[in-house]
Amino acid sequence: MLARLFRPSALASNNHLRRALMSGPNGVSKSQDRSSLVPFSSRLKEGRALAEDVWSIYNVANLPADCINLGQGYMNFAPPKWVAEAANTALQGVAENHYSHPKGRMRLRQAIKAHYGPQFNRDLDVETEILVTSGANEGQYSVFVAFLEIGDEVIMFEPFFDQYLPSVTFNGGTPVYVPLHPPKKGGKNTSNEWTIDLAELRRAITPRTKMIIVNTPHNPVGKVFTREELEGIAALAEEFNLIVMADEVYDCLTFDGKEHVRIATLPGMWDRTVTVGSAGKAFCATGWRVGWLIGPASIIRPTLAATTRIVFCTNSPLQEAAAAGLEQAEQRGYFAKQREEYAERRKILTDAFDKLGLTYTLPEGSYFILLDIKNVKFPDDYPFPQSVLGRGRDFRACWFIALELGVSSIPVSEFYCEEHANIGEAYARFAFCKDTETLKRAAERLQKLKNYIQ
Amino acid sequence: MLARLFRPSALASNNHLRRALMSGPNGVSKSQDRSSLVPFSSRLKEGRALAEDVWSIYNVANLPADCINLGQGYMNFAPPKWVAEAANTALQGVAENHYSHPKGRMRLRQAIKAHYGPQFNRDLDVETEILVTSGANEGQYSVFVAFLEIGDEVIMFEPFFDQYLPSVTFNGGTPVYVPLHPPKKGGKNTSNEWTIDLAELRRAITPRTKMIIVNTPHNPVGKVFTREELEGIAALAEEFNLIVMADEVYDCLTFDGKEHVRIATLPGMWDRTVTVGSAGKAFCATGWRVGWLIGPASIIRPTLAATTRIVFCTNSPLQEAAAAGLEQAEQRGYFAKQREEYAERRKILTDAFDKLGLTYTLPEGSYFILLDIKNVKFPDDYPFPQSVLGRGRDFRACWFIALELGVSSIPVSEFYCEEHANIGEAYARFAFCKDTETLKRAAERLQKLKNYIQ
Repeated sequence: MLARLFRPSALASNNHLRRALMSGPNGVSKSQDRSSLVPFSSRLKEGRALAEDVWSIYNVANLPADCINLGQGYMNFAPPKWVAEAANTALQGVAENHYSHPKGRMRLRQAIKAHYGPQFNRDLDVETEILVTSGANEGQYSVFVAFLEIGDEVIMFEPFFDQYLPSVTFNGGTPVYVPLHPPKKGGKNTSNEWTIDLAELRRAITPRTKMIIVNTPHNPVGKVFTREELEGIAALAEEFNLIVMADEVYDCLTFDGKEHVRIATLPGMWDRTVTVGSAGKAFCATGWRVGWLIGPASIIRPTLAATTRIVFCTNSPLQEAAAAGLEQAEQRGYFAKQREEYAERRKILTDAFDKLGLTYTLPEGSYFILLDIKNVKFPDDYPFPQSVLGRGRDFRACWFIALELGVSSIPVSEFYCEEHANIGEAYARFAFCKDTETLKRAAERLQKLKNYIQ
Repeated sequence: MLARLFRPSALASNNHLRRALMSGPNGVSKSQDRSSLVPFSSRLKEGRALAEDVWSIYNVANLPADCINLGQGYMNFAPPKWVAEAANTALQGVAENHYSHPKGRMRLRQAIKAHYGPQFNRDLDVETEILVTSGANEGQYSVFVAFLEIGDEVIMFEPFFDQYLPSVTFNGGTPVYVPLHPPKKGGKNTSNEWTIDLAELRRAITPRTKMIIVNTPHNPVGKVFTREELEGIAALAEEFNLIVMADEVYDCLTFDGKEHVRIATLPGMWDRTVTVGSAGKAFCATGWRVGWLIGPASIIRPTLAATTRIVFCTNSPLQEAAAAGLEQAEQRGYFAKQREEYAERRKILTDAFDKLGLTYTLPEGSYFILLDIKNVKFPDDYPFPQSVLGRGRDFRACWFIALELGVSSIPVSEFYCEEHANIGEAYARFAFCKDTETLKRAAERLQKLKNYIQ
């Protein structure tokens, strides 16, 4: 079991990871070279932790200044004024600028209870069933700290949010991948045509399986898991006594009347499910780093112990703002209006792809569209940087589109393990969490793809 | 080596920890009881992670409403208006509300470079030698993630900041304690009379020692380590190839002209030292959760990989505010003025203790005073709550003073390992990061201690 931590994982055979590792120190050096005196932990050799990630490669800084950034999923507009104003009010206070209780500020916990209680059909206990975290990301990390033993396995559906992988391996866990299967038929498709195979999921479960991550609405596919799918997953979680981490940070972004079903609300599932939420996604403020976990005391209590040591508490003024957001959202019709705005943004991109005759997955949730780039042709001798060579074809396609058309996107093979990267190679992820003017300009530029379609 | 993670540590024999453990799940349960279906990780059984901590016991919520809180170290005043105003300006922006680069916002990294560069006698590289973290606490945690192997030992001086302990054990490390020795002679003393024994420190080093934590100015003693002491520590770090974590979050709070020496500036030490700083301490904003690490690329780079996965990035608007604070501090004479204010606050409490004829340690830095409570007598049959019974005598003394006099403080045995808790039992920690009116009222109330001095 221990060996897992010390042997380079299968991923380490990846060229880009190997490069990263070779440039790091691998043993105690007492020689003249003082540039790396003490070696870093072997846990960083797992989970692509030191590899150059897509976010760094396709960072605006690496791209032409006028490139339109539909890569990383953050908004190019501000949070609602009335929410930001609440942050400013908090900044005028005293207690609102000092340590919060590690569980989170009471006002925010009360607001979470009021907003989510009805959705969970529960009178949520603000002391034991709600935990504010420093972004959804840190909340998830804390759950791994709190529950994983060395060698425990965590099942995640591919494509997966790339942060899961190192967060699991840093805590001694082993990621186990189960693919979402892309639509079999060609042509237009919607995200619900990406399917899970329950028999395959069952085969992935071993005596060491501790947890399964269910991300719905799904990044990057946009899939909103159906009740039937969730019931199938729930039955396996129950049969094998697994924790379910329900990553529902895009819960407020579903389209076309699609119902967002919370797996925690299925019979018996409350007791084994921790649901992850995000103020950044809800209130267009990805840089506020306020998230929350909702679940039974048996999961929240150990996770509180973990998060208390990792960050002690989450920043106070922006917790107050998030509380104000949740308190006023319904009366302002905020989420309904936001859904409409995002549906309009989505349409600008899908219209552009339709016009090109390119295939894509119409997302029922989240703010991403997967464009099928199999038929996008680019010159093999294009001057690609080292960072995208030796990666999937999608890395080169995204680079080419960014440089030649001036619109950046993210290659989807990054969201797969090496073994299944070829599935992801067929897609580029475009984020539509941008204002309509920007999306329209991007749509126009993307028409140049016509010249490169096979 | 692995065994460490699975066997309850020596600390687990502590009654309070045992209680906490017994109330948690200890094995997979598939019975009717669904209140704890999946056991939490054994790593929570180490490092007091689930024990009721002093902060919870002496929380204002547990104390009479009119009790003056000199317990937890946060201010009862707001951050400077001009710093908070910069946060509000950021909130009006777009990018300032979205993801920062995981290294931190460039404006803050530049401000750190400008402010600290001269103090380190270095032209700090904002790309490789500075890392913004979600509070100093998360920065320290990330260093442990980045460098500890299972079984690695981390030396800390007792009394120690209580967060170090679980942060080390969560990442497979083993804390090793070396005491700061209290002044031998009775009567008035200053924090520099708490001494380290270098021979003792040397004996604590083993082939598994990876790191030593040097907290100066020191919480809770207030000691500002001298150049000679730091040179002694540095020589051992060099001889045994150790990383030094220099926790200098109180660097801007030294008194009486005492020089704050940075161990990173001693010959050769830059290459093995990571220095920890805090916007919360510098700008009276403990709830902003903005801290930073300064060190060589060989330490910052792996720590960046860790923090990127743990929190992804730190909240953006308050990074902007911290940047404004550092940018304008010198021109406004901010830190000099703040030092004067804190010296005045310190004097209110020390005058009160002098009047009582009680012994205390005059702190040369930080915002804490250790009061010697050996001679404070309280009735053995006082109605103490369960949470303080079975702990050190100082737990009962602090409870008694809070309930009877209306001033809360923190028992210092919490900052020691069980074996050495008796040293800490002699002291209560009073925080003076409160406005002068509050401190004066506290000073007045504390005069009632006269009735309880032996």
